[in-house]
Amino acid sequence: MRLNCDLGESYGAWQMGADDAVMPLIDQANIACGVHAGDPIVMQRTIAMALEHNVQIGAHPSYPDRQGFGRRSMALSEQELIAWLHYQLSTLDGMAKVQGGKLVYVKPHGALYNDMMHDEALRHLIYKAMAQYDMSLSLMVLAGPNGQVLSCEAKQFGLSLLFEAFADRQYAASGDLIPRQIEGAVLSHSDALRQASQLIEHQTVTTASGAVIAVQADSLCVHGDNPEALALLKDIRALMT
Amino acid sequence: MRLNCDLGESYGAWQMGADDAVMPLIDQANIACGVHAGDPIVMQRTIAMALEHNVQIGAHPSYPDRQGFGRRSMALSEQELIAWLHYQLSTLDGMAKVQGGKLVYVKPHGALYNDMMHDEALRHLIYKAMAQYDMSLSLMVLAGPNGQVLSCEAKQFGLSLLFEAFADRQYAASGDLIPRQIEGAVLSHSDALRQASQLIEHQTVTTASGAVIAVQADSLCVHGDNPEALALLKDIRALMT
Amino acid sequence: MRLNCDLGESYGAWQMGADDAVMPLIDQANIACGVHAGDPIVMQRTIAMALEHNVQIGAHPSYPDRQGFGRRSMALSEQELIAWLHYQLSTLDGMAKVQGGKLVYVKPHGALYNDMMHDEALRHLIYKAMAQYDMSLSLMVLAGPNGQVLSCEAKQFGLSLLFEAFADRQYAASGDLIPRQIEGAVLSHSDALRQASQLIEHQTVTTASGAVIAVQADSLCVHGDNPEALALLKDIRALMT
Amino acid sequence: MRLNCDLGESYGAWQMGADDAVMPLIDQANIACGVHAGDPIVMQRTIAMALEHNVQIGAHPSYPDRQGFGRRSMALSEQELIAWLHYQLSTLDGMAKVQGGKLVYVKPHGALYNDMMHDEALRHLIYKAMAQYDMSLSLMVLAGPNGQVLSCEAKQFGLSLLFEAFADRQYAASGDLIPRQIEGAVLSHSDALRQASQLIEHQTVTTASGAVIAVQADSLCVHGDNPEALALLKDIRALMT
Repeated sequence: MRLNCDLGESYGAWQMGADDAVMPLIDQANIACGVHAGDPIVMQRTIAMALEHNVQIGAHPSYPDRQGFGRRSMALSEQELIAWLHYQLSTLDGMAKVQGGKLVYVKPHGALYNDMMHDEALRHLIYKAMAQYDMSLSLMVLAGPNGQVLSCEAKQFGLSLLFEAFADRQYAASGDLIPRQIEGAVLSHSDALRQASQLIEHQTVTTASGAVIAVQADSLCVHGDNPEALALLKDIRALMT
Repeated sequence: MRLNCDLGESYGAWQMGADDAVMPLIDQANIACGVHAGDPIVMQRTIAMALEHNVQIGAHPSYPDRQGFGRRSMALSEQELIAWLHYQLSTLDGMAKVQGGKLVYVKPHGALYNDMMHDEALRHLIYKAMAQYDMSLSLMVLAGPNGQVLSCEAKQFGLSLLFEAFADRQYAASGDLIPRQIEGAVLSHSDALRQASQLIEHQTVTTASGAVIAVQADSLCVHGDNPEALALLKDIRALMT
Repeated sequence: MRLNCDLGESYGAWQMGADDAVMPLIDQANIACGVHAGDPIVMQRTIAMALEHNVQIGAHPSYPDRQGFGRRSMALSEQELIAWLHYQLSTLDGMAKVQGGKLVYVKPHGALYNDMMHDEALRHLIYKAMAQYDMSLSLMVLAGPNGQVLSCEAKQFGLSLLFEAFADRQYAASGDLIPRQIEGAVLSHSDALRQASQLIEHQTVTTASGAVIAVQADSLCVHGDNPEALALLKDIRALMT
Repeated sequence: MRLNCDLGESYGAWQMGADDAVMPLIDQANIACGVHAGDPIVMQRTIAMALEHNVQIGAHPSYPDRQGFGRRSMALSEQELIAWLHYQLSTLDGMAKVQGGKLVYVKPHGALYNDMMHDEALRHLIYKAMAQYDMSLSLMVLAGPNGQVLSCEAKQFGLSLLFEAFADRQYAASGDLIPRQIEGAVLSHSDALRQASQLIEHQTVTTASGAVIAVQADSLCVHGDNPEALALLKDIRALMT
């Protein structure tokens, strides 16, 4: 089991997140590519930190909407989507290579991630763009009941998947996440730590109704942008060592 | 002698230049990297055209100023300049590789080009950024009386230079271009064609005062964004075959 | 009957449209507000031209998407939409006042216009934003079978409407425009001129099936961004004098 | 004596400063106009807070450089500078009027402020742009030895000035601020509080060499973007009541 976190989301004079504190604690950095967040200076610095701490470099591409932080769906044409993905993978990968690193995987950001999980046609475009760029890249997706289906899809494009789970989110019996706006959807520190432990040791979660279901995850998505998240991250990292 | 032209300077719904007409006539395309001009869709299309016509791909990086088209000098810090260059080289090179091409040389755009020709410290930063990115890249600069000095500088960074000259601009006895705002600075079609011929055959130009001076150029910079420029380009190409 | 046209859609070094040729021929200029198109310099120049030719100044606000030219729908929150409208109306109105003009009406651009015509909730937000800004503004909408309904809606917000029709587009029996991708949807010069004449004299159009239906329009939307459009505009203007 | 602070410098998902904590403590808010910082949503919220706390609304316009936060000088033409100023004043003023407020003064931001203090021609363009927009606006400048000269200049354009001083910066005998990079340039909490008190009561400061010089200020510039700055601001406010 690995830990992944969204990083490099500062922009110009604006700081976001606590990248310095998070980087030593994780295995995989989802790095913004200068479109929804990040800029060349932030990218350079984030890549340097990832390499220093031996953290895998993942691209965190987004819809082209900086003011909305990539959180608003946009109706891009197929050609536009592929071009925007190539652009973002290229720039992060190229800047990583300058420092002796390289791009290992891709995790779409925000609305693009959500849309990808629900829209097969969009997913196919993402596979296509990635396969055109580099067949050795993996796509990170949400672990869930449709995991097998997604793996087959990806294989048809010659790509592999990385599945991620959430320690701090309550799961439904279906294996889906309970939507964030529903009470109890976000777990307390102690419940999240317990769920992390169960995911790591047993590859299961206990749902709201008490059922135990399988969640096959390669990575846990963690956060570091507030003191509570950082405390949880430290405790999860401690569990794993 | 080769012909180079600035291309890929459209953006979103805005068209600029006649890339379709120009690409078959040139040898080297200076392609905008999505900062002063261009966007992922424009870059993709321009790269495809260059590969189709067997035209070398050059990056045309700029100060980060789209509204000003990279024509206004900006006081970037060293770190900022290098990061912005890595970002632009990476994105163009990566997008070229997707299509089976690769970045061959770099020609800074607009204010960055002018500043480079006059500011040694800035030139050193550009060499440094290029050498960090890929030692096999060449930097395209203005052919002039300081050519030897520039070549030595570049060699210290392990880089080679490409020198460009202008068919349609009057040269001073010093070997510098007569500034554009001075009368007679821009040559007529027939004078430009004569100067192109002289540059190609003799590697000289005849200055305003009638002196013949050496101008060692690897490439002529041509334009295609208006009918007169395109007509001149066609005639220069015809000269060369 | 008046003529309206989208103007001020250049940006930085990129020219779009033939504003100089169009402005003397129209009554109402829908001026881009620096978001999907335009910038402060373009806005200043376009306002000056409108005032010189005694043309009414309309705001042409858009979703915040310059690279996509406001042609892609975006899921803005209510607060975001209202803030983006206030921003765009303010900047155009303020820059018009500097030159002794003022904002008279609002015509949303691109995807925002299309979404407005089909989404009542979005329309209500536009009315609300306009009423908060200035109760004397009119909203320009597409003349069609739901005209009465729209007028009642607007009145509830204290606003009036301007209805626009198209000379060069074929109408369906329902009073809607035939979608652009269907053959025959865009009329020839002579058919468009005939339809303009019919709209002006009889406030009717003849549909594809030969029926004559009422289209109550205050303004015809014209274009000037290519020679054919400009020729049609000149002929329509000639009709009206 | 009044207190002014730069506010509304968040952007999209990025928070900057502690506007909630600062606004109740100040008299004049220098609000970013969506160019170097701010966006329509941030502007709307900042204006609402200013009106709630009866704080004067000032425009804080900048060079067009969001990634650089307006801290890099840019060589705008006269026409560009005036258009960018009109744009920024218009949008803030218009959005203030929607909420029942209005623009009262202008304080340029970052590199534009520094350039203004040293470049008479630039200052004249700022006066010109402001006078064209609204003769009742005041321009906020740094109080210093050239105060009389600046007042005369402004009067020739029909404008008045507001002079600001700094509580937390050491002054030179010349009346200029000691540059920030020199040791001792930024005063400790207790020294800053003492200087604030002296500025308020005697309109003087004691320089590094112990001399007492006159500094005629209408307003003290305060900060709130870190706990120390906020603590100083609270103590200065307490002094004044």
